[in-house]
Amino acid sequence: MNGNSLDDTGLDAARRAVAALGSALTAELLDRTTAIYAPLHAAAAPEDILITRDAAYGADARHRLDLFRPEAPSVRRTAVVFVHGGGFVGGDKSKPGSPFYDNVGVWAVRQGFVGVNMTYRLAPGAPWPAGADDVAAAAEWLSGQAAALGIDHILLLGQSAGAAHVAAALALHEARLKGAGVRGAVLLSGVYDLTAANPKAVSAAYYGSDAALFAERSSQARLLECAIPWLVGMAEHDPSHFQRQALGLIDAAFAKRRTLPPLLQLLGHNHLSGMLHLGLPRDQLGPAVAEFAAACVAAADPT
Amino acid sequence: MNGNSLDDTGLDAARRAVAALGSALTAELLDRTTAIYAPLHAAAAPEDILITRDAAYGADARHRLDLFRPEAPSVRRTAVVFVHGGGFVGGDKSKPGSPFYDNVGVWAVRQGFVGVNMTYRLAPGAPWPAGADDVAAAAEWLSGQAAALGIDHILLLGQSAGAAHVAAALALHEARLKGAGVRGAVLLSGVYDLTAANPKAVSAAYYGSDAALFAERSSQARLLECAIPWLVGMAEHDPSHFQRQALGLIDAAFAKRRTLPPLLQLLGHNHLSGMLHLGLPRDQLGPAVAEFAAACVAAADPT
Repeated sequence: MNGNSLDDTGLDAARRAVAALGSALTAELLDRTTAIYAPLHAAAAPEDILITRDAAYGADARHRLDLFRPEAPSVRRTAVVFVHGGGFVGGDKSKPGSPFYDNVGVWAVRQGFVGVNMTYRLAPGAPWPAGADDVAAAAEWLSGQAAALGIDHILLLGQSAGAAHVAAALALHEARLKGAGVRGAVLLSGVYDLTAANPKAVSAAYYGSDAALFAERSSQARLLECAIPWLVGMAEHDPSHFQRQALGLIDAAFAKRRTLPPLLQLLGHNHLSGMLHLGLPRDQLGPAVAEFAAACVAAADPT
Repeated sequence: MNGNSLDDTGLDAARRAVAALGSALTAELLDRTTAIYAPLHAAAAPEDILITRDAAYGADARHRLDLFRPEAPSVRRTAVVFVHGGGFVGGDKSKPGSPFYDNVGVWAVRQGFVGVNMTYRLAPGAPWPAGADDVAAAAEWLSGQAAALGIDHILLLGQSAGAAHVAAALALHEARLKGAGVRGAVLLSGVYDLTAANPKAVSAAYYGSDAALFAERSSQARLLECAIPWLVGMAEHDPSHFQRQALGLIDAAFAKRRTLPPLLQLLGHNHLSGMLHLGLPRDQLGPAVAEFAAACVAAADPT
């Protein structure tokens, strides 16, 4: 027992259990991390949050998003659009009986945002740049419904493959995103420079196996020119591969701009747990996203 | 008016005012930043915190520290020892009528720590490595008083010149620090590699003007070998020079370890405001320090 124990609610135990899992991205790590954090969230979303499931933003069965809104909004809000991970070939915005990733939408509403959890087409059926196209399509669909949904601006929040898709959307569809009201993007533990990655770590199902195409399918160079601000984040216990991608982007941005981009490391977290702890006490991600969103909106709309 | 305004307590206005100051480290920036944040803190330290001023940890008039403790401690606590900045030639642990840096000690007690604000000898009277020597002396003094003060472990927290001194103490006095119970160090906006710095930005008063000595007076190489864990932090609006020092240390650590060190960027803050907002709502620094301290203590004392 130590006098500076931070709490007695299971968060310290969760931190120790996550640290003990190491950083290797295995199915066991993902399952155990989920099992550690699931019991810390409420079993069901609060009743005062209005949830609309599976709105269709496109023709494909995966062109679906869930909306989280307050029951009685008084003013328009920024929408935080979460784009989940899953190795380009899996993952989903939610799963029955699981608090993930409803936790993102619930957090968003509590923080004064509208929450949007989107999914997207998967490889190998839908290879590069399908994910980027879907992010842009979702943003444009939200923009078209902005008045009805009570949205004014949009912040994109992608993790792992979702961060790769958000980054690629910034690179390929900047004008469309800007037109849709996208004011900023949070890139967590993603892939931005395929040429710097271990080729084995690049999803052949999504990016193809022709390394000659990796440069043009990388978003990093165009991120450095993008007028929509982005924040690059990673976890302290992310696999080295993902940390290298984040550091490569940070180094390139500093070399070009002589100032660091907004950045975030989730202390004590692994590749997945950073998303799963969103909304809990001692949340390291939520406050940073909120701070960044406020700065992005203020920069875009200085009234 | 935006639906996701984070609060109405002056913190949004403070953020905007700080952002408008830019990053150039001028006396005006320091004065205005202090004026922005001072009114947001309570005028006086809370009465339930026991403050002991100017305990002498050495013979010099600057060998002084202030202690912040709970009135009725139940168990021993980790001490967070704050080492202030001031360009190696100025600064102090507190100033009558100012909430700075009493805010650090008050935050520490509220968070379950013992707070210690130390000062140290200044250049040009006390050149390199006087600051590092003083950090080690203060840690050893605290260790000698540990039972009386209710301390078990020590975390060092240095900012600007204070971070340079803490880093140099890790480099020069690792064994002494370890013996005194130092379990970790937070390095905010410091200088670690004099050879990578613009020579004009290196304090000649403290480090001397002989660039041939800069390599051996740099802490970076030895930090990479140090067994006491450290976290490297900087502000989003720190001058490029300080960001470059942090990024250089991060890059070197990743190159050596293939994993990122714990790191922290204070979003929306300038060189000074990150310290001044410690303890306020939406504090970005305090929760990270607490999280890092808990991990350091758990690693050193896994019971």
